Amino acid sequence: MTSDLDSLCGQIAALAEGTQTATSLSERALNRAVEMADLNAFVALVPSIVMAQAKAATVRRQQGNPLSPLDGVPIAVKDNFLTKDYPTTACSNALPMESIGQDATVVANLRRAGAIILGKTNMHEWAYGATNSISSVGPTKNPHDLSRITGGSSGGSAAAVASGIVGAALGSDTGGSIRIPSAACGIYGFKPGFGRASRHGVLPLSWSLDAPGPMARTLKDIAALLPYFIGRDEHDRSTHFALPFSKPKMPNQPPRLLNLVGSGLERSDGVSDALVAALNASVGRHENVEIENVTSYFAAWEAILHCEASSYHAGLLEKNPNGFSPVTRAHLEAGNKITGVEYLRAQRIRSSFITMLLERLPSWDALVLPTLPVVAPKQSDLWQEFGGRKVTTQDSMTWFCWLGNLAGFPCISIPIANQKSGLPVGMMLMGKPGQDEQLLAIAEWIDMRLRKEH
Amino acid sequence: MTSDLDSLCGQIAALAEGTQTATSLSERALNRAVEMADLNAFVALVPSIVMAQAKAATVRRQQGNPLSPLDGVPIAVKDNFLTKDYPTTACSNALPMESIGQDATVVANLRRAGAIILGKTNMHEWAYGATNSISSVGPTKNPHDLSRITGGSSGGSAAAVASGIVGAALGSDTGGSIRIPSAACGIYGFKPGFGRASRHGVLPLSWSLDAPGPMARTLKDIAALLPYFIGRDEHDRSTHFALPFSKPKMPNQPPRLLNLVGSGLERSDGVSDALVAALNASVGRHENVEIENVTSYFAAWEAILHCEASSYHAGLLEKNPNGFSPVTRAHLEAGNKITGVEYLRAQRIRSSFITMLLERLPSWDALVLPTLPVVAPKQSDLWQEFGGRKVTTQDSMTWFCWLGNLAGFPCISIPIANQKSGLPVGMMLMGKPGQDEQLLAIAEWIDMRLRKEH
Repeated sequence: MTSDLDSLCGQIAALAEGTQTATSLSERALNRAVEMADLNAFVALVPSIVMAQAKAATVRRQQGNPLSPLDGVPIAVKDNFLTKDYPTTACSNALPMESIGQDATVVANLRRAGAIILGKTNMHEWAYGATNSISSVGPTKNPHDLSRITGGSSGGSAAAVASGIVGAALGSDTGGSIRIPSAACGIYGFKPGFGRASRHGVLPLSWSLDAPGPMARTLKDIAALLPYFIGRDEHDRSTHFALPFSKPKMPNQPPRLLNLVGSGLERSDGVSDALVAALNASVGRHENVEIENVTSYFAAWEAILHCEASSYHAGLLEKNPNGFSPVTRAHLEAGNKITGVEYLRAQRIRSSFITMLLERLPSWDALVLPTLPVVAPKQSDLWQEFGGRKVTTQDSMTWFCWLGNLAGFPCISIPIANQKSGLPVGMMLMGKPGQDEQLLAIAEWIDMRLRKEH
Repeated sequence: MTSDLDSLCGQIAALAEGTQTATSLSERALNRAVEMADLNAFVALVPSIVMAQAKAATVRRQQGNPLSPLDGVPIAVKDNFLTKDYPTTACSNALPMESIGQDATVVANLRRAGAIILGKTNMHEWAYGATNSISSVGPTKNPHDLSRITGGSSGGSAAAVASGIVGAALGSDTGGSIRIPSAACGIYGFKPGFGRASRHGVLPLSWSLDAPGPMARTLKDIAALLPYFIGRDEHDRSTHFALPFSKPKMPNQPPRLLNLVGSGLERSDGVSDALVAALNASVGRHENVEIENVTSYFAAWEAILHCEASSYHAGLLEKNPNGFSPVTRAHLEAGNKITGVEYLRAQRIRSSFITMLLERLPSWDALVLPTLPVVAPKQSDLWQEFGGRKVTTQDSMTWFCWLGNLAGFPCISIPIANQKSGLPVGMMLMGKPGQDEQLLAIAEWIDMRLRKEH
């Protein structure tokens, strides 16, 4: 059995077989990070911190006491997850560059399993944007084409995985920040449903929308990581009723998919063709369902996001306004102007949105959309045109993804073939609340058939 | 066995024994309501509606097919619960006097069990006040002294139970609206923990604080009614994880009570003496624990209340501003001025309040406070003085109770002896989240020992 050393499960297998050690895998990752320095995927990466972890993991394996199958695999972490060794800055100049001395729950879970925290990945400042163009350390670049953006805000994590520096990385998602760069960089990204995964120690953007999740090169890698995200954490009250991750059950018939369309859900012809081709090649039959009021739902998502972000940042904005980039500062000031009644109206629109998806649509196993309406934009393009729309590149990135955060449903982006330009295209699937496992199984069902094709 | 026909369980027993019928109990309730008309306990009470229900219940018993032990007992319902036969006005002139044609979930649950919905009880307009002095049909009067208020906002329900018109009534509680009039009128009132009881069909005041609950003359009556309140209701998403009511387990040792004290938690000497005497006579040992920042927690409760109420009423306030009383209108206009960031700060203070109660206090089974700092005030008294404080009668009513809503914990008010004036005094107990049953058991443990005393 040959191990694909670019994937997490490949590395796990190599460690189990003894063909690699934590030390060799870590050296490989560090060397690749140097080779791929142009991507600007990392904000913090310190060989001595990595090699100390690797040495300890190697010793555990030598003594026959690995902490878990993951013991010794390097993983990259988005810079809004607290880490006890690396500083956490959210790629903003507003926070002092100092280590906080504790791990986010998900990081702690992985560390307890022996995973090596390789470094902190570049992200859109405070996760408050979806291009990864605004960051204290500059923009990330797309491994498929350095002149293109990765999308964000977990752009560094996506670039690190897509370029083979690490087999997997951690991201967070408030309006697509895991799925957007996963789609733009051609990897898999999973956003758990709200209340399933602990956000403790992940610097918030908008706490009723945020979710942390894994990004990786295969669905098997995603499945291997989800147990470290999902389940009750006494430090995050939103997970009070979260069940632990259970084994996904493969559907024994094709999942019923609704392909959402309508005004506000336009997509470029290339992306549309790629999605339809992937659906035809996998589930075959699927239904187009038009949803209405997309603009009003989007405005609700935006009001919740702005208001919660301004609430979280109120103290820091007052103390250190110039630490924020002008764009982020403008967002925060706009959020301060939203009234409580407007915020609550947005939350009530959110509630009617969820009711619409669950009760008013024809029955479904997963909702499907492209992850992005376009392929990864050029760094220099501030506008995108598709399906009769002309929108900012920022808005084109969250174009579909925010629906999953407003609903709070589990979502995944999986890469599909793009006959037109060859640049990555993602299929986004949304599952039902509490059914993260079923969503993963549906994604596997589809993915298996798409991989067979090639 | 003689039945105490004033209590719900007494009536249930009399129906089972056949010494009473639904018809005789309903006639008795209607006659009492006429006798007690001065209390102004009801806003709607129609003999033909009552007797039609009674006749059907009597026939079911005659045929040996009662729907439940409750089949045939008259129950009064606060006027903010939707009822398919009676109109629902929240005792406001802002709503048209017309029947909505559906039952709130709790009303439907009770109706399915055969309970007779006697009438709709007087309440503080929109539940937006705790005196029951402002209502489209005028103030309610306290059965213990007609010159005194009942407190509110479920004042009509409390008066109807305390005067023996009905054995039990439904109330709702956002800052004490079940517990306040229960204490002032000398009965039992239970506020379920947030997320345990369905609010579907109960006109909201503030949906992150509201809870519906039973009011009755004995704890056995409360226990008999709670199963109709508690459990998952697909129409109220907050109950998504609610377990059904389970049988309370009586503690086998004295419950550990913390008596909360501190600045902002002052009480009159008479109430303090009554509470200490009741604690000495029941649990014996209890601990005084001082809590800090009460003013900041109270401000958070108030901001949440005002903001959510203004959100809910926005449409009606625009359409029919003069339908609201000037005081209520002023509250709603004040709520419109709160910013989203202020609202969210209040929700974050709430979160730190819950953490303080659960993690920073010494270990406890229940927190204890008087329900009110004073006995039921005179109708004419707009101010109350106690423990060095001078506050409005309105503020004296919610003085302690709001803590239970801000926490979202289950709460109960039980009547205790008052040697000083003989007017009712309530002991408020707060239980832990999700432990409504344990709280009831603790209340029974205490109540049993207090009743034995007399």
